[in-house]
Amino acid sequence: MNVNLILEEGMRVRGTNARGMTTLFDTNGDAHIATSASPMEIMLESLGGCSTMDVISILRKQRRTITDFRVDIEAERAEEHPKVFISAHLKYTLTSPDATLNELTRAVELSQEKYCSASAMFIRSGCEITYEAVINLPQ
Amino acid sequence: MNVNLILEEGMRVRGTNARGMTTLFDTNGDAHIATSASPMEIMLESLGGCSTMDVISILRKQRRTITDFRVDIEAERAEEHPKVFISAHLKYTLTSPDATLNELTRAVELSQEKYCSASAMFIRSGCEITYEAVINLPQ
Repeated sequence: MNVNLILEEGMRVRGTNARGMTTLFDTNGDAHIATSASPMEIMLESLGGCSTMDVISILRKQRRTITDFRVDIEAERAEEHPKVFISAHLKYTLTSPDATLNELTRAVELSQEKYCSASAMFIRSGCEITYEAVINLPQ
Repeated sequence: MNVNLILEEGMRVRGTNARGMTTLFDTNGDAHIATSASPMEIMLESLGGCSTMDVISILRKQRRTITDFRVDIEAERAEEHPKVFISAHLKYTLTSPDATLNELTRAVELSQEKYCSASAMFIRSGCEITYEAVINLPQ
């Protein structure tokens, strides 16, 4: 896998993948106000995005209807450099007329324990990952 | 730190940080063509973005002129699930009329060995990180 990063204005950095798709990273600096999320925020979002795709893929294979799906993540970082993530809690919320909490929980467990590359890297780095699953009926 | 992910169309997922700044993640799926980079591509870009901000911050404190700056990353992933990164090579290229290769190299080493949270997490997860520094004069 190849990616590149190019510094733009201030601290804004443009990431580009091998197919030319871009992602912006930014942070506040001298007289520069960030216009995009920071690398560590986006690294944390990568964890949630990676796991979301696993869970959605599993539920779709089971022909479940996904009305809405979201993941809320709360994470703590070390106080000293390097400020690695030391814990992250993921709350998976599925709105579906036909999926059960057991099915969602099983999909989340499969992602966290087997498939999710980002989660495996967080865990192997020493970050404690916890999670919960919530299911809602469509209104 | 808080972030959330919301599933949009197909496999596209929108990440949002606490200040409402958004980042898109996507992957090809059934009849769905990705329009954004994947979570693992973006996780790799987070590594480069995090380190870029360290290096630029250090060089600016030394009052060096940054004409251009880029990082090219080539990474390998495990073949079996979970497909974690097993190695990543970062090539830092600075174009500057007044910075030396020694100064760039020292800034890169400070980032990799002390400050970069993303790099520390990659290394602690078992990923081998290597890097090189290149300096160009502006044309």
